[in-house]
Amino acid sequence: MTSRKYQNCIEACLDCAQACEHCADACLGESDVQKMADCIRTDRDCATMCWTAVALMSRESNFSAQTCQLLAELCEACASECERHDMQHCQDCATACRKCAAECREMAGVGA
Amino acid sequence: MTSRKYQNCIEACLDCAQACEHCADACLGESDVQKMADCIRTDRDCATMCWTAVALMSRESNFSAQTCQLLAELCEACASECERHDMQHCQDCATACRKCAAECREMAGVGA
Amino acid sequence: MTSRKYQNCIEACLDCAQACEHCADACLGESDVQKMADCIRTDRDCATMCWTAVALMSRESNFSAQTCQLLAELCEACASECERHDMQHCQDCATACRKCAAECREMAGVGA
Amino acid sequence: MTSRKYQNCIEACLDCAQACEHCADACLGESDVQKMADCIRTDRDCATMCWTAVALMSRESNFSAQTCQLLAELCEACASECERHDMQHCQDCATACRKCAAECREMAGVGA
Repeated sequence: MTSRKYQNCIEACLDCAQACEHCADACLGESDVQKMADCIRTDRDCATMCWTAVALMSRESNFSAQTCQLLAELCEACASECERHDMQHCQDCATACRKCAAECREMAGVGA
Repeated sequence: MTSRKYQNCIEACLDCAQACEHCADACLGESDVQKMADCIRTDRDCATMCWTAVALMSRESNFSAQTCQLLAELCEACASECERHDMQHCQDCATACRKCAAECREMAGVGA
Repeated sequence: MTSRKYQNCIEACLDCAQACEHCADACLGESDVQKMADCIRTDRDCATMCWTAVALMSRESNFSAQTCQLLAELCEACASECERHDMQHCQDCATACRKCAAECREMAGVGA
Repeated sequence: MTSRKYQNCIEACLDCAQACEHCADACLGESDVQKMADCIRTDRDCATMCWTAVALMSRESNFSAQTCQLLAELCEACASECERHDMQHCQDCATACRKCAAECREMAGVGA
């Protein structure tokens, strides 16, 4: 595919969205699901906003930057929650979320 | 709002989507979340497809009927899972899913 | 359906999303589509964010308020663009957008 | 990111979704937008269903296969429409759609 505007940020969002969807599903398969309830909640919200951000960036929406700025906050919240759990899917998700947050802030032109 | 094509089906989908999103969230707050894992899974999938179907119908997409036909199957699966649980949010969700399935089949021109 | 948190805002978002999807489609059927290009663009973005906001509110997400605050800005932008055109679908869409913006601001606790 | 189930199909869908979002936006910038109206319509629908399919596959939904089977039809329709236009964004989109359709059919276990 030809290079696209925002491509780094888009890829970080796509990776993050998939990590969140996968983490939520894997959390539902854990033995102590109750402990994972907040993780599943933040995963869902973060994934939803990732898909939204990617859709807007792909069409070079004027609202891409503001959406990414908001997404960065969801990513940080999701990462903080995921980091509280030792499972690999949570750790992977936290990494993807932190990376996505950084790319989103850079894209939105707001510093860390 | 002015009357729209597919309006009955759209309203049933919107009601179903909200019921599924709410049910998934309420399931995460139950004491035995593990027992609710499959319910949360079908809720998520059914909600996702409801939002998709509503978006397509709202823009009178050529693929509205096929999407509704697929959605009817997700609704039935979600209703069957929800009916296994006594909580009010599950029972409400099952009702919304059954109604949505019926409207989707009618919209798609396939009999029950 | 039982009363839900944020129900006024959810309903305004759903009405707005449908109006935007419909307006974009109707714009594509106008004789001078080129003049409608920006209207179609803002319609798409506004609809996308409406669906996102409704999904988050339906599950009582912690990020509902921030999402609605952002959505209010998209709604205002979309309304301003729609108001530049005389077609009924644009006028209806502008009305739905203004109403959604007001409900979103109230829900987010930010004044007009 | 670690390898995931359906990863080839997910990547084809992501590429297709982005190509469709981009093509729709680029079509809106063409001098004869009216000629592109159907292209914009199929782009929108195809993109919407791509995002849905990716969300479902990422969470290993039981309805992934059926969604991909439906998506394959949207992809073919979008590719056929795009192929009628000479612009690079249409040609690129057609290629992404054909590839996505093939991956979706393979994932769904239905032959070409």
